[in-house]
Amino acid sequence: MANFVFNQFIPTRLFFGCGEISKLATETLPGKKALLVISAGTSMRRFGYLDKVINLLGKNKVEVVVYDKILANPIKSHVMEAAELCRKEQCDFIIGLGGGSSIDSAKSIALMACNEGDYWDYMFGGTGKGKPAIGGALPVVAIPTTAGTGTEVDPWTVITHNNEKIGYGIAPLFPAVAIVDPEMMISVPAHLTAYQGFDAFFHAAEGYIANVATPISELYSLKSIELIYKSLPKAVADGRNIEARSDVALASTLAGMVESTSSCTSEHALEHAMSAYYPELPHGAGLIVLSVAYFSAFVNDVPERFMKMAEAMTGTKSNDPQDFIKALIAMQKACNVEALKLSDYGIVEGDLAKFAANARATMGGMFSLDPRALTDEDVLAIYKQSYR
Amino acid sequence: MANFVFNQFIPTRLFFGCGEISKLATETLPGKKALLVISAGTSMRRFGYLDKVINLLGKNKVEVVVYDKILANPIKSHVMEAAELCRKEQCDFIIGLGGGSSIDSAKSIALMACNEGDYWDYMFGGTGKGKPAIGGALPVVAIPTTAGTGTEVDPWTVITHNNEKIGYGIAPLFPAVAIVDPEMMISVPAHLTAYQGFDAFFHAAEGYIANVATPISELYSLKSIELIYKSLPKAVADGRNIEARSDVALASTLAGMVESTSSCTSEHALEHAMSAYYPELPHGAGLIVLSVAYFSAFVNDVPERFMKMAEAMTGTKSNDPQDFIKALIAMQKACNVEALKLSDYGIVEGDLAKFAANARATMGGMFSLDPRALTDEDVLAIYKQSYR
Repeated sequence: MANFVFNQFIPTRLFFGCGEISKLATETLPGKKALLVISAGTSMRRFGYLDKVINLLGKNKVEVVVYDKILANPIKSHVMEAAELCRKEQCDFIIGLGGGSSIDSAKSIALMACNEGDYWDYMFGGTGKGKPAIGGALPVVAIPTTAGTGTEVDPWTVITHNNEKIGYGIAPLFPAVAIVDPEMMISVPAHLTAYQGFDAFFHAAEGYIANVATPISELYSLKSIELIYKSLPKAVADGRNIEARSDVALASTLAGMVESTSSCTSEHALEHAMSAYYPELPHGAGLIVLSVAYFSAFVNDVPERFMKMAEAMTGTKSNDPQDFIKALIAMQKACNVEALKLSDYGIVEGDLAKFAANARATMGGMFSLDPRALTDEDVLAIYKQSYR
Repeated sequence: MANFVFNQFIPTRLFFGCGEISKLATETLPGKKALLVISAGTSMRRFGYLDKVINLLGKNKVEVVVYDKILANPIKSHVMEAAELCRKEQCDFIIGLGGGSSIDSAKSIALMACNEGDYWDYMFGGTGKGKPAIGGALPVVAIPTTAGTGTEVDPWTVITHNNEKIGYGIAPLFPAVAIVDPEMMISVPAHLTAYQGFDAFFHAAEGYIANVATPISELYSLKSIELIYKSLPKAVADGRNIEARSDVALASTLAGMVESTSSCTSEHALEHAMSAYYPELPHGAGLIVLSVAYFSAFVNDVPERFMKMAEAMTGTKSNDPQDFIKALIAMQKACNVEALKLSDYGIVEGDLAKFAANARATMGGMFSLDPRALTDEDVLAIYKQSYR
């Protein structure tokens, strides 16, 4: 049973659906001059998304300054540089266009445009100083072009600095507006579609077994889990299947609402530790590798939760919590990600103890949300079972 | 299938659960001096709720001015009088404490504290002038002591003036804070518990069959329908059953979220027309009387929707949309409301044509959200079938 004392706050105005990007031209936006944050990759220009967004903003009489250096695992120095640019250009809101890296960076830039000092002054965990961000943040408009992070409807941003990959969230970082348009996602290649879709899946599943789940977060979780199981393999198989893309996009946004109402658990801490040291490891790929061992660790702690997730996936009544693990493995196979190997990203077995220590040190809070407290030995065992 | 292009915006900060009223003393509230709006009845004082709230606000250093004239079907003249008091006392936010009448009035007062002229200048429909409320509204804190309206998480307020009972809603009227504490509901008598619970049920069910339902609103609808079917009879039978009260309170809030993401349909217009002329008729009682004929009118238009609702209620697979009607009647019996008669409230058969015309004239927009467009003859037939 989920907690019957809870709070809920998701102040983002969400526009969802094919063609909804056009709302940029017609809706009241939270400012007149935007810093538009995109990745250092080529896709936003190559697929015409950047031009389209600038054109629509022009119709809404919004000026645009582009910052285009964000890395796949976004880093602090870009946050600081872009915040400086934002102040200099006197932008009054930030648009994050792209994957989670661009939108998370947009949030962190929005924070540093309004607060003095260094971004790490405000981080909790790791070497962060935990200062309160009394300056608040500029408003953020989030336009995801991937279906995975759910960051468009949550207050969280994950930035890396010196092997510390730390999540941070305060109420002013909820995007004021989120536009989730599945047509902006059709260009994502198959393997990234799979990694990102699994990231969303784990937001939903971790949030469902988390000890802070609520009667409302579990609605979002189960629907997200159902949609991803049903449609992620189709979106991976054919990226132009717009119905499957829409299902996965909705699932990702619902999973973001899970992050705003429940929370990720320590699986995310375990993964962040890995990609903090190996930034070439995609976050979703890292989660996929860890997931069977991680979830298996809790099967007997909250068996009814696992059976409910299995039922959402398969559509049939479950009497065995292992049904979830079986369905998870089946979905990995259907998405061609069952053979992912950490060693392919250069990770060696000798790294695992370091990851375990880093996960606890930088994102220790997530461990308190697991269905059962994992010991350091448990954590190392999950890494070892997942390693190949 | 629900609409796959939709928007969602529920900016209210919700605190839910037994004891959560204490958040009044500890959370940041949206002002320092509150106009506290309660009904003209005695229950807020008699059960100690008013003292409790004022005491908690005092701990939070919030000053309070009480306005205690609101009627069960709240009227425009009280909105105008209280807005005047609010300006005179320089209150900077409004608290609605009580049933939907007090919270809706708080919203309308918040509007008129910031806008010139007459409240009806801003109404759409009926003799309203449809002026834009450019002044916005003061922030509202909603503390429901009944489980029915869901107004604590939606932008809607329903006020009556000269036989026009009209709903109005704009974004600034979403409560900034909602505190839903089931312990504040245990004093509601059995028959009102039933009427209010059915009101919530119809918000959920109408929102589920509405042609503007979304993939998210339907999650709220089905959970609300499930909880009410399961627990409303228990809350009616024993008002001190706090678990049942909590289920029904959560269902009511979820149904309010349905009103913010989908919409009520014309059943609500049909009922408002009746209680506009007969303000002694409780809103929920009017809905109960209409419901079997109203929902039966759509059984063949969206049969799969009715079967899904039946499944949420009974927990068993449905292959017949009439299962919903059967379960609705069973729930009426379980809550001792199956024998309600409009004639007991003084309504005569000659009134029915007048109701039909009023419903269309004052709340015509709701008819456009039905699964199928009802003709005037259809509407009159629903009234006639429901009359005794």
